[in-house]
Amino acid sequence: MKTLNLALIGFGAVGRGFVDLLQARHAYLETQHNLRLNLIGVATARRGSLFRLDGLTLDALSQAAESGHLNNYPTQPRLIRGLEPLTMLTRPGVDVVIEITPTTYENNAEPAMGHIRAALAAGKHVITANKGPIALAYPDLMAQAAHRDVFLGFEGTVMGGTPVLRLARKGLAGCHISELRGIVNGTTNFILTEMESGKPYADALREAQARGYAEADPTNDVEGFDAAGKLIILAHIIFGKALSMADIDREGITKLTPEDIQSAQANGERWKLIARAALSADGQLSASVRPTRLPLSDPLAGVGGGVNAITYQTDLIGAVTLTGAGAGGKATAYALLSDLIELAEWL
Amino acid sequence: MKTLNLALIGFGAVGRGFVDLLQARHAYLETQHNLRLNLIGVATARRGSLFRLDGLTLDALSQAAESGHLNNYPTQPRLIRGLEPLTMLTRPGVDVVIEITPTTYENNAEPAMGHIRAALAAGKHVITANKGPIALAYPDLMAQAAHRDVFLGFEGTVMGGTPVLRLARKGLAGCHISELRGIVNGTTNFILTEMESGKPYADALREAQARGYAEADPTNDVEGFDAAGKLIILAHIIFGKALSMADIDREGITKLTPEDIQSAQANGERWKLIARAALSADGQLSASVRPTRLPLSDPLAGVGGGVNAITYQTDLIGAVTLTGAGAGGKATAYALLSDLIELAEWL
Repeated sequence: MKTLNLALIGFGAVGRGFVDLLQARHAYLETQHNLRLNLIGVATARRGSLFRLDGLTLDALSQAAESGHLNNYPTQPRLIRGLEPLTMLTRPGVDVVIEITPTTYENNAEPAMGHIRAALAAGKHVITANKGPIALAYPDLMAQAAHRDVFLGFEGTVMGGTPVLRLARKGLAGCHISELRGIVNGTTNFILTEMESGKPYADALREAQARGYAEADPTNDVEGFDAAGKLIILAHIIFGKALSMADIDREGITKLTPEDIQSAQANGERWKLIARAALSADGQLSASVRPTRLPLSDPLAGVGGGVNAITYQTDLIGAVTLTGAGAGGKATAYALLSDLIELAEWL
Repeated sequence: MKTLNLALIGFGAVGRGFVDLLQARHAYLETQHNLRLNLIGVATARRGSLFRLDGLTLDALSQAAESGHLNNYPTQPRLIRGLEPLTMLTRPGVDVVIEITPTTYENNAEPAMGHIRAALAAGKHVITANKGPIALAYPDLMAQAAHRDVFLGFEGTVMGGTPVLRLARKGLAGCHISELRGIVNGTTNFILTEMESGKPYADALREAQARGYAEADPTNDVEGFDAAGKLIILAHIIFGKALSMADIDREGITKLTPEDIQSAQANGERWKLIARAALSADGQLSASVRPTRLPLSDPLAGVGGGVNAITYQTDLIGAVTLTGAGAGGKATAYALLSDLIELAEWL
């Protein structure tokens, strides 16, 4: 039996979903994967921290989380409260740091970036669902992980738990991928699907905001920044190429009119916000995020609402498309678990 | 560097595609996967056999294959000609037996079944693209492989090189799959796609025969036997359940009329031959192959022509659909290579 001691840095919806998953899959992981996962620490910035080398009690932890503060976790022998994230993640006994703090691309993707670097420097395996550090520093973080011979997992950074990165890294090993095209932003895909029933853009956006799919300031989604960030991650992992935001030919969906939508429908086509990266014959990578008219025969044309999909163009087996949920706390919690299973096989 | 010595049993289109792939990916496999693949034997029933522990010369082998008989391979030091398949595959020095003889489900899937059993008994790793042995004897063959602590690879048995089995076994590890639905027969999917343009069944079948997609006796495809065979393999691998042909509620596409097709189109739906297997709450597996009307929003509805796809319904991330080529010599050759890469990681 392999045992891994885990510390969660950050404890929002993904973290709570992950704790539920640890409880539900405990026996399965032991019997099917010979793997025991032992949660020994949870650190948050403002809602307390718990550390116990013998392991935390998961249902008590869930109850404390529901109460709003980890101080409501009961007293146990050898329980340590109040450790700062950076103190906990370097602590002896921690094997894997799971970095799921609230972090954006801004401010150099802090605090996640600093947590990941400190954990790798301390020789800990790291698994994250935070896009910022992977988009901004993937080659550097991978080099740091290789230097310490530890694992860096990041499946949750694109398409939640749908294993689109693992498909390329493992399932298509031995193929050369020359191009990828994807629908990687659920908000814009929902808006475009709404517009197909005749709504103008502004009404469709309001509907998305009313349902909580779009934020009050929707710029990040509708102008294609979110999709471009995921494309930067994909470019690193699939093509080994570093892109910056400025390298991406980016256009959002805000200028699409009901006439554009109808004109496509009349031609048996459909508008989608497509993130695309393609290698040229001389090894240059071109990248774009832009509204694109697809024939209905394209596997991406049928991807509606909040569903995401990526098509990889390969030399040996042609086009391969993976379609699935693009986000969600439970799905992202699964992405963390899937990285832990890969880590256990790698060890 | 890991080195694996390979013997090919059978040398048709897939075998020749595999030799091309070994040449094209030699350097890639060494640098990216630290893996050296050394082809030391090729055995056929009627077109000669070659065995050379130092390795066969791949371009000379391709030329001999094109000439129609392996006797046209040039003389080399320590080259042995004329070994029977069963003699070659148990020979010392062979690490991996790649079983790709022409074999159907009939006659107990011989000769492939006997080759695979003999190779496993001799402690060789086995990789096959032959459906028959996996459909008829998967649990038994896996037990035999486990007993000798060797690897049994079978990715090429369903959807050619599109990694639909590896997705379930590795990419979705930790999820529970409760149902799968797939388009796994390209011939019937081509015929149904043709019928959507108004052709009656008989005309669409003739078109498929003219293009070489359907055989003179199309029963195996159009009555759903081929899809049912693949469903038996999927039931073994995804659900760990043994099905026989009689367990599958099977109906082909021969009774579909142009009126049926039009009626679906008028309702925003499309007919597909769907292979489905689903677990009930009490762990029973029900399985069917039958024409099914799908709404256009279903990811399987957009899968046209010779393309195949499978949707897995999971508990943690909902529906995941993989779409890609269903067959082809080059794609199946890639499936063999992908199994070799998995074997090398497993060792």
